[in-house]
Amino acid sequence: MKLGRLNHVGVATPSIERSLETYKAMFGAEPAGEPFDLPAQGVRVCFVDTPNSQIELIEPLGETSPIVKFLEKNPAGGQHHVCFEVEDIAAARAHFEGKGARILGPTRIGAHGTPVFFLHPKDMGGVLTELMETPAH
Amino acid sequence: MKLGRLNHVGVATPSIERSLETYKAMFGAEPAGEPFDLPAQGVRVCFVDTPNSQIELIEPLGETSPIVKFLEKNPAGGQHHVCFEVEDIAAARAHFEGKGARILGPTRIGAHGTPVFFLHPKDMGGVLTELMETPAH
Repeated sequence: MKLGRLNHVGVATPSIERSLETYKAMFGAEPAGEPFDLPAQGVRVCFVDTPNSQIELIEPLGETSPIVKFLEKNPAGGQHHVCFEVEDIAAARAHFEGKGARILGPTRIGAHGTPVFFLHPKDMGGVLTELMETPAH
Repeated sequence: MKLGRLNHVGVATPSIERSLETYKAMFGAEPAGEPFDLPAQGVRVCFVDTPNSQIELIEPLGETSPIVKFLEKNPAGGQHHVCFEVEDIAAARAHFEGKGARILGPTRIGAHGTPVFFLHPKDMGGVLTELMETPAH
Protein backbone atom coordinates (compact mmCIF):
# COMPACT_ATOMS: atom_id res chain seq x y z
CA MET A 1 0.00 0.00 0.00
CA LYS A 2 1.15 3.51 -0.77
CA LEU A 3 -0.60 6.84 -0.98
CA GLY A 4 -1.99 6.92 -4.52
CA ARG A 5 -2.98 9.75 -6.84
CA LEU A 6 -5.31 12.32 -5.36
CA ASN A 7 -8.05 11.56 -7.88
CA HIS A 8 -10.38 14.28 -6.64
CA VAL A 9 -11.61 16.41 -3.78
CA GLY A 10 -15.32 15.86 -3.18
CA VAL A 11 -17.14 19.14 -2.58
CA ALA A 12 -20.75 19.02 -1.39
CA THR A 13 -23.07 21.68 -2.74
CA PRO A 14 -26.77 22.44 -2.47
CA SER A 15 -26.72 23.12 -6.24
CA ILE A 16 -24.27 21.82 -8.82
CA GLU A 17 -25.59 24.41 -11.26
CA ARG A 18 -24.81 27.25 -8.88
CA SER A 19 -21.37 25.81 -8.09
CA LEU A 20 -20.60 25.52 -11.81
CA GLU A 21 -21.55 29.18 -12.18
CA THR A 22 -19.09 30.01 -9.41
CA TYR A 23 -16.22 28.03 -10.98
CA LYS A 24 -16.99 29.63 -14.32
CA ALA A 25 -17.24 33.17 -12.93
CA MET A 26 -14.17 32.91 -10.72
CA PHE A 27 -11.83 30.73 -12.81
CA GLY A 28 -13.41 30.55 -16.25
CA ALA A 29 -13.61 26.79 -15.58
CA GLU A 30 -16.04 24.55 -17.48
CA PRO A 31 -17.34 21.20 -16.21
CA ALA A 32 -15.52 18.11 -17.49
CA GLY A 33 -18.89 16.71 -18.59
CA GLU A 34 -22.60 16.88 -17.85
CA PRO A 35 -23.83 16.30 -14.28
CA PHE A 36 -25.11 12.76 -13.74
CA ASP A 37 -26.91 10.77 -11.06
CA LEU A 38 -25.14 8.18 -8.96
CA PRO A 39 -28.16 6.53 -7.30
CA ALA A 40 -26.09 3.88 -5.47
CA GLN A 41 -24.42 6.69 -3.52
CA GLY A 42 -27.40 9.02 -3.33
CA VAL A 43 -25.68 11.90 -5.08
CA ARG A 44 -25.71 13.84 -8.31
CA VAL A 45 -22.17 14.42 -9.56
CA CYS A 46 -20.23 16.76 -11.82
CA PHE A 47 -16.46 17.02 -12.23
CA VAL A 48 -14.37 20.11 -12.84
CA ASP A 49 -10.82 19.40 -14.05
CA THR A 50 -7.61 20.87 -12.75
CA PRO A 51 -4.45 20.05 -14.75
CA ASN A 52 -3.51 17.31 -12.26
CA SER A 53 -6.71 16.33 -10.44
CA GLN A 54 -10.42 17.08 -10.21
CA ILE A 55 -13.04 18.73 -8.05
CA GLU A 56 -16.06 16.47 -7.71
CA LEU A 57 -19.19 18.51 -7.08
CA ILE A 58 -21.82 16.43 -5.31
CA GLU A 59 -25.44 17.39 -4.70
CA PRO A 60 -28.01 15.37 -2.72
CA LEU A 61 -30.01 12.90 -4.80
CA GLY A 62 -33.17 12.22 -2.80
CA GLU A 63 -34.03 12.93 0.82
CA THR A 64 -32.01 10.02 2.17
CA SER A 65 -28.82 11.18 0.49
CA PRO A 66 -25.81 10.71 2.78
CA ILE A 67 -24.82 14.34 2.21
CA VAL A 68 -28.10 15.88 3.45
CA LYS A 69 -26.76 16.03 6.99
CA PHE A 70 -23.46 17.54 5.85
CA LEU A 71 -25.37 20.30 4.04
CA GLU A 72 -27.53 20.97 7.10
CA LYS A 73 -24.30 21.69 8.97
CA ASN A 74 -22.73 23.47 6.00
CA PRO A 75 -25.59 25.10 4.06
CA ALA A 76 -23.27 26.80 1.56
CA GLY A 77 -21.50 23.51 0.85
CA GLY A 78 -17.88 22.60 1.56
CA GLN A 79 -15.12 20.04 1.33
CA HIS A 80 -16.70 16.64 1.90
CA HIS A 81 -14.10 13.95 1.12
CA VAL A 82 -10.80 13.24 -0.61
CA CYS A 83 -10.29 10.34 -2.99
CA PHE A 84 -7.03 8.46 -3.48
CA GLU A 85 -6.49 5.92 -6.24
CA VAL A 86 -5.49 2.33 -5.55
CA GLU A 87 -4.41 -0.32 -8.05
CA ASP A 88 -6.61 -3.11 -6.72
CA ILE A 89 -9.73 -2.28 -4.72
CA ALA A 90 -10.11 -5.76 -3.20
CA ALA A 91 -6.50 -5.75 -2.03
CA ALA A 92 -6.98 -2.24 -0.63
CA ARG A 93 -10.11 -3.28 1.23
CA ALA A 94 -8.34 -6.28 2.74
CA HIS A 95 -5.41 -4.04 3.67
CA PHE A 96 -7.56 -1.50 5.53
CA GLU A 97 -9.67 -4.21 7.16
CA GLY A 98 -6.42 -5.73 8.38
CA LYS A 99 -5.53 -2.35 9.91
CA GLY A 100 -8.84 -2.36 11.80
CA ALA A 101 -10.09 0.67 9.87
CA ARG A 102 -13.83 1.23 9.78
CA ILE A 103 -15.09 0.90 6.22
CA LEU A 104 -18.40 2.56 5.41
CA GLY A 105 -20.61 0.13 3.55
CA PRO A 106 -19.86 -2.19 0.68
CA THR A 107 -17.52 -1.66 -2.24
CA ARG A 108 -19.55 0.06 -4.96
CA ILE A 109 -19.10 1.43 -8.44
CA GLY A 110 -18.05 5.07 -8.15
CA ALA A 111 -18.36 8.15 -10.32
CA HIS A 112 -15.51 7.08 -12.62
CA GLY A 113 -17.00 3.63 -13.21
CA THR A 114 -14.49 1.75 -11.07
CA PRO A 115 -15.06 0.23 -7.62
CA VAL A 116 -14.70 2.44 -4.54
CA PHE A 117 -15.16 2.32 -0.79
CA PHE A 118 -14.97 4.87 2.00
CA LEU A 119 -12.92 4.93 5.20
CA HIS A 120 -14.53 6.44 8.30
CA PRO A 121 -13.17 9.94 8.99
CA LYS A 122 -12.36 8.91 12.56
CA ASP A 123 -9.69 6.59 11.20
CA MET A 124 -8.18 9.24 8.90
CA GLY A 125 -7.77 12.34 11.08
CA GLY A 126 -11.30 13.60 10.53
CA VAL A 127 -11.13 13.29 6.74
CA LEU A 128 -13.72 11.12 4.99
CA THR A 129 -11.49 9.18 2.59
CA GLU A 130 -12.54 7.40 -0.58
CA LEU A 131 -10.37 4.71 -2.13
CA MET A 132 -10.98 4.25 -5.82
CA GLU A 133 -9.54 1.72 -8.24
CA THR A 134 -7.60 3.55 -10.94
CA PRO A 135 -9.51 3.65 -14.22
CA ALA A 136 -7.89 1.65 -17.03
CA HIS A 137 -7.56 4.59 -19.47
CA MET B 1 -7.53 32.97 -15.40
CA LYS B 2 -8.01 29.22 -15.46
CA LEU B 3 -8.27 26.61 -12.77
CA GLY B 4 -4.65 25.75 -11.98
CA ARG B 5 -2.99 22.68 -10.50
CA LEU B 6 -4.47 21.45 -7.26
CA ASN B 7 -1.25 22.04 -5.35
CA HIS B 8 -2.54 20.60 -2.10
CA VAL B 9 -5.45 19.91 0.19
CA GLY B 10 -4.98 21.57 3.57
CA VAL B 11 -5.93 19.28 6.44
CA ALA B 12 -6.13 20.73 9.94
CA THR B 13 -5.00 18.49 12.75
CA PRO B 14 -4.53 18.86 16.50
CA SER B 15 -1.22 17.01 16.11
CA ILE B 16 0.93 16.70 12.99
CA GLU B 17 2.85 13.90 14.69
CA ARG B 18 -0.29 11.89 15.26
CA SER B 19 -1.51 12.54 11.69
CA LEU B 20 1.83 11.39 10.31
CA GLU B 21 1.47 8.20 12.33
CA THR B 22 -1.96 7.70 10.73
CA TYR B 23 -0.68 8.22 7.17
CA LYS B 24 2.20 5.88 7.90
CA ALA B 25 0.04 3.20 9.51
CA MET B 26 -2.72 3.35 6.89
CA PHE B 27 -0.78 4.02 3.68
CA GLY B 28 2.88 3.49 4.54
CA ALA B 29 3.30 7.16 3.63
CA GLU B 30 6.25 9.22 4.87
CA PRO B 31 6.27 13.02 5.18
CA ALA B 32 7.83 14.93 2.27
CA GLY B 33 10.06 16.74 4.81
CA GLU B 34 10.24 17.79 8.43
CA PRO B 35 7.37 19.80 9.93
CA PHE B 36 8.12 23.54 10.06
CA ASP B 37 6.59 26.69 11.50
CA LEU B 38 4.88 29.28 9.32
CA PRO B 39 4.51 32.10 11.86
CA ALA B 40 2.99 34.56 9.35
CA GLN B 41 0.01 32.22 9.03
CA GLY B 42 -0.05 30.94 12.59
CA VAL B 43 0.40 27.30 11.64
CA ARG B 44 2.91 24.48 11.81
CA VAL B 45 3.05 22.62 8.51
CA CYS B 46 4.06 19.26 7.10
CA PHE B 47 3.45 17.88 3.61
CA VAL B 48 2.69 14.32 2.57
CA ASP B 49 3.14 13.63 -1.15
CA THR B 50 0.74 11.88 -3.46
CA PRO B 51 2.03 11.14 -6.99
CA ASN B 52 0.21 14.20 -8.37
CA SER B 53 -0.44 16.52 -5.42
CA GLN B 54 0.06 16.91 -1.69
CA ILE B 55 -1.74 16.78 1.62
CA GLU B 56 -0.72 19.74 3.77
CA LEU B 57 -1.08 18.93 7.44
CA ILE B 58 -1.53 22.10 9.49
CA GLU B 59 -1.44 22.37 13.26
CA PRO B 60 -2.13 25.52 15.31
CA LEU B 61 0.95 27.63 16.06
CA GLY B 62 0.05 29.71 19.09
CA GLU B 63 -3.29 30.47 20.69
CA THR B 64 -4.30 33.02 18.08
CA SER B 65 -3.82 30.59 15.21
CA PRO B 66 -6.58 30.98 12.62
CA ILE B 67 -7.25 27.23 12.77
CA VAL B 68 -7.99 27.10 16.53
CA LYS B 69 -11.67 27.76 15.89
CA PHE B 70 -11.82 25.16 13.12
CA LEU B 71 -10.39 22.56 15.51
CA GLU B 72 -12.87 23.52 18.22
CA LYS B 73 -15.62 22.61 15.76
CA ASN B 74 -13.70 19.61 14.41
CA PRO B 75 -11.62 18.27 17.29
CA ALA B 76 -10.30 15.29 15.30
CA GLY B 77 -9.22 17.58 12.46
CA GLY B 78 -10.53 17.67 8.91
CA GLN B 79 -10.30 19.23 5.48
CA HIS B 80 -9.57 22.93 5.90
CA HIS B 81 -8.79 24.38 2.46
CA VAL B 82 -7.80 23.61 -1.11
CA CYS B 83 -4.93 25.33 -2.90
CA PHE B 84 -4.79 26.01 -6.63
CA GLU B 85 -1.68 27.28 -8.38
CA VAL B 86 -1.62 30.51 -10.39
CA GLU B 87 1.15 31.79 -12.63
CA ASP B 88 1.19 35.35 -11.28
CA ILE B 89 -0.13 36.08 -7.80
CA ALA B 90 -0.52 39.84 -8.35
CA ALA B 91 -2.51 39.27 -11.53
CA ALA B 92 -4.64 36.66 -9.73
CA ARG B 93 -5.32 39.02 -6.85
CA ALA B 94 -6.37 41.78 -9.25
CA HIS B 95 -8.55 39.27 -11.11
CA PHE B 96 -10.42 38.14 -7.99
CA GLU B 97 -10.71 41.69 -6.64
CA GLY B 98 -12.25 42.60 -9.97
CA LYS B 99 -14.77 39.79 -9.46
CA GLY B 100 -15.73 41.28 -6.11
CA ALA B 101 -14.43 38.24 -4.25
CA ARG B 102 -13.56 38.71 -0.59
CA ILE B 103 -9.84 38.16 -0.08
CA LEU B 104 -8.71 37.25 3.42
CA GLY B 105 -5.80 39.45 4.41
CA PRO B 106 -2.68 40.42 2.51
CA THR B 107 -0.69 38.35 0.04
CA ARG B 108 1.89 36.45 2.07
CA ILE B 109 4.66 33.95 1.58
CA GLY B 110 3.19 30.47 1.83
CA ALA B 111 4.47 27.05 2.79
CA HIS B 112 6.19 26.52 -0.56
CA GLY B 113 8.03 29.85 -0.41
CA THR B 114 5.90 31.60 -3.02
CA PRO B 115 3.23 34.26 -2.45
CA VAL B 116 -0.30 33.16 -1.60
CA PHE B 117 -3.67 34.62 -0.63
CA PHE B 118 -6.99 33.15 0.45
CA LEU B 119 -10.50 33.60 -0.95
CA HIS B 120 -13.39 33.67 1.52
CA PRO B 121 -15.28 30.35 1.51
CA LYS B 122 -18.55 32.25 0.97
CA ASP B 123 -17.34 33.21 -2.49
CA MET B 124 -16.26 29.65 -3.39
CA GLY B 125 -19.21 27.45 -2.42
CA GLY B 126 -18.15 27.04 1.21
CA VAL B 127 -14.58 26.05 0.34
CA LEU B 128 -11.74 28.12 1.77
CA THR B 129 -9.54 28.51 -1.32
CA GLU B 130 -5.86 29.37 -1.39
CA LEU B 131 -4.25 30.74 -4.53
CA MET B 132 -0.51 30.12 -4.68
CA GLU B 133 2.04 31.25 -7.20
CA THR B 134 3.59 28.19 -8.85
CA PRO B 135 7.11 27.53 -7.53
CA ALA B 136 9.87 28.03 -10.12
CA HIS B 137 11.30 24.49 -9.88
